[in-house]
Amino acid sequence: MALVRLLRRSQHLARIGCRSLSSPSPACPPPAPNQPNFPCVDAHAARESRLKARRSKPAPPAIQQDAETGPEPPYARPNPTTYHTYHHPHPLQLSYSTTPLPAFDIAYETWGSLSPSKDNVILLHTGLSASSHAASTPANPAPGWWEKFIGPGKAIDTNQFFVICTNVIGGCYGSSGPSSLEEATGKPWATRFPLVSIFDMVNAQFHLLDHLGINKLYASVGCSMGAMQSLAAGWLHPERVGKIVSISGTARSSPSAVAMRFAQRAVLMADPNWNNGFYYDGLPPHTGMKLARQIATITYRSGPEWDLRFGRQLRSNESPSLPDQSHPSIQRPPALCPDFLIETYLDHQGESFCLKYDANSLIYISKAMDLFDMTLPALQALNIKSNTSPFRKKMHTSSSVPHKTSHSKSHPPPVNPPPYLPALAAGMAPLAHIPTLVLGVQSDILFTVEQQREVADALRMGGNENVSYYELGGVWGHDTFLIDTLNVGGAIRGFLSLS
Amino acid sequence: MALVRLLRRSQHLARIGCRSLSSPSPACPPPAPNQPNFPCVDAHAARESRLKARRSKPAPPAIQQDAETGPEPPYARPNPTTYHTYHHPHPLQLSYSTTPLPAFDIAYETWGSLSPSKDNVILLHTGLSASSHAASTPANPAPGWWEKFIGPGKAIDTNQFFVICTNVIGGCYGSSGPSSLEEATGKPWATRFPLVSIFDMVNAQFHLLDHLGINKLYASVGCSMGAMQSLAAGWLHPERVGKIVSISGTARSSPSAVAMRFAQRAVLMADPNWNNGFYYDGLPPHTGMKLARQIATITYRSGPEWDLRFGRQLRSNESPSLPDQSHPSIQRPPALCPDFLIETYLDHQGESFCLKYDANSLIYISKAMDLFDMTLPALQALNIKSNTSPFRKKMHTSSSVPHKTSHSKSHPPPVNPPPYLPALAAGMAPLAHIPTLVLGVQSDILFTVEQQREVADALRMGGNENVSYYELGGVWGHDTFLIDTLNVGGAIRGFLSLS
Repeated sequence: MALVRLLRRSQHLARIGCRSLSSPSPACPPPAPNQPNFPCVDAHAARESRLKARRSKPAPPAIQQDAETGPEPPYARPNPTTYHTYHHPHPLQLSYSTTPLPAFDIAYETWGSLSPSKDNVILLHTGLSASSHAASTPANPAPGWWEKFIGPGKAIDTNQFFVICTNVIGGCYGSSGPSSLEEATGKPWATRFPLVSIFDMVNAQFHLLDHLGINKLYASVGCSMGAMQSLAAGWLHPERVGKIVSISGTARSSPSAVAMRFAQRAVLMADPNWNNGFYYDGLPPHTGMKLARQIATITYRSGPEWDLRFGRQLRSNESPSLPDQSHPSIQRPPALCPDFLIETYLDHQGESFCLKYDANSLIYISKAMDLFDMTLPALQALNIKSNTSPFRKKMHTSSSVPHKTSHSKSHPPPVNPPPYLPALAAGMAPLAHIPTLVLGVQSDILFTVEQQREVADALRMGGNENVSYYELGGVWGHDTFLIDTLNVGGAIRGFLSLS
Repeated sequence: MALVRLLRRSQHLARIGCRSLSSPSPACPPPAPNQPNFPCVDAHAARESRLKARRSKPAPPAIQQDAETGPEPPYARPNPTTYHTYHHPHPLQLSYSTTPLPAFDIAYETWGSLSPSKDNVILLHTGLSASSHAASTPANPAPGWWEKFIGPGKAIDTNQFFVICTNVIGGCYGSSGPSSLEEATGKPWATRFPLVSIFDMVNAQFHLLDHLGINKLYASVGCSMGAMQSLAAGWLHPERVGKIVSISGTARSSPSAVAMRFAQRAVLMADPNWNNGFYYDGLPPHTGMKLARQIATITYRSGPEWDLRFGRQLRSNESPSLPDQSHPSIQRPPALCPDFLIETYLDHQGESFCLKYDANSLIYISKAMDLFDMTLPALQALNIKSNTSPFRKKMHTSSSVPHKTSHSKSHPPPVNPPPYLPALAAGMAPLAHIPTLVLGVQSDILFTVEQQREVADALRMGGNENVSYYELGGVWGHDTFLIDTLNVGGAIRGFLSLS
């Protein structure tokens, strides 16, 4: 029996990537049976071992399904036959570098039909880690990340609009980013890829619009980082943007949001597999990605939702063994690995994401969000400019701030405004003539409701007399834009319908 | 010249722990001069290298000063001559285990003079990572963690009170914890140390009080996790606690707080150096500790404070090199390592903490906080009981909840109370006769103001007619209790003075 146990243990250890039975290491649980064991930590080594085993096999298909854990390629690049790719063979000027990106690809998908006059186009911008697959298409019937909002009769009505969604520059779902091959070397750019800004992402999208012969957008629509892009589109090309929808975004990343993204980048970059970003020949930093996603998930949801959804419930997949088994609230002794449902939820969110997205893309795009700042001095320091008409250019290149503090009697000056509000209003002055919907969520801890008020206030102070502003309650926090079709969808549909 | 450069680079790499010039690794910056470099990541390898170098030298003194980075022992156990230690030679019953802790040490310091009748004792409880050194003493003149609050004429007036502060069981500053030697083996317990609860920490403290011949406390005082202990003391020994002060604490850890502590434990336990907790013969998980502390720091402060203190200011220790150098807000191109002051602040907080505290203690004590729950069913599931008189015992061991929903006309029933409030009131009923001060901070994201209201409401609903309740504004978040001597100190002094 002892031999059988030893054999079983040996097989188990081999499976999770341990070569020795005698030397405890983070990859291997300690050998003695009465030593503590940490399955939540062993999971990292087990994943590493599975990835290594796959690397030694013949080239896998683009997305390989794992019975236990879902798709597990190094990261999940979607099938390129299900989206379009525009190759821009000319240099892209960049915000933070005098050296342009030599050329770039941009992946995109579309829904609805382009009108003969090409005046029904909605450019939809994505959040940090989303692909161009916002909704199902004939080529890819899988539900998209905004499936419930896009379609005939939905918030973004494809009976009326031609919707375009791209993967952002810097991403890993078909557009050029750190994982793309550099033409000059034939190798992945890795961290030699230049830093990109939200404005650079949008400029790349406008090169796509040029290619498609689309001069003016009916609307630029986005949530989260997509809202930043939406506002950036209005600043870069005010004559080409008919309306703006900014949902749970910001015009100036706050130090709190920077802090929360910094914590994610720090854990990711500390993963030895990250290797300064040069991991494409080896294994991706899957442990760092899991840990980063756990932190991110905390910022995406809200405490009130977790109170309702998880409370202090314990995970239930273990047999009870506590002295007092009579009470259902504690069924077994607590452990240092996850006990509460909230912990297993975060663990699962991290596990299911850690191989689906490129780590360098996460770092680059998260940094682009941190750097986003539409106050006038920050915009003036960029290596790119707003493509405004001479009249409008005069308005926003002046370093003086607008004198008016409110655009109408219905919107009195904000109470206790942040000190930078006039500078933000000056920076956003090119958007003065673009009707804009600003929508925020009171339980959002990442893009706080104060930041939503700030966007609306800055636009109004900058002279915009067509700012629609809504605040939503509810418990979903930042992720509300993915969930609340009734309120988010209703506001969008109403705003887009107004002539 | 090229040879000199190569030699310098070789020396630099050797200093930060890199053996090869040709193979890029997380420990070593890539060799080619035009390759990206990440000093924020290299810092982990450099720290590892310094620690390794020290291990090969003769045994260092207890705390070794490093000119660059401050004290760097494996972790900073304070000089044992500056605090008292009580050794309890008998077993300590534990909340989550039928096997008791065989014996334990408890480190403590005192201020003021014990009155002849021993009726002027304040037991001060610490937060997660604090030592018994709450204020300077003749033996240790270094300022303590609550220096501004303890002393003659201060909030806790040592002209009047005899103050005792202990290092908690599970800690690493002189009390028994995972880093202590297990008597049976002569080796550090590591993760074989049993899980302890907040109640176990307090029971250990009461064994110390027994040893000192102190029957009843004038008050049990604590902030953050100390507030949990303060309330736990009232539940465990209601006849021995005269007053309770609970500042920025909770009676039931929320899923949000669990999530934020889980994220810290997860990054720490993923550090290969953690080695399932068995690192005392090797190097401590300093990288994981740094990353965990960065996350913790985010939860200790508040967004409004960072808006005022850091805003979007960039760190300034690099020479300007951007195309547009005319504007002071951006002096150099951004990088993937810290750019903003908020990032360097978090980096510094992590760096300065990562070798000062034992990683296993952090994990154990953080877990004890997660498990803290004074709702009746959770208390009933513990392996320990409240030492109430028969009359009181009847009150709180009944599984029915109190029928009254408010104790007086001056405090109407709470609006929109959480569903567990009656269960919390039932659990806290043993505290009904202990005057209690509950104080919270509106900008606290870790122990939210809703949780402060919950503590006060549950106490009142449980029959306590002497609940003082204050909410503070201000921008300091959870750390307010360390900073705001005027408001926090004033409320404590007033409450302690009331007869």
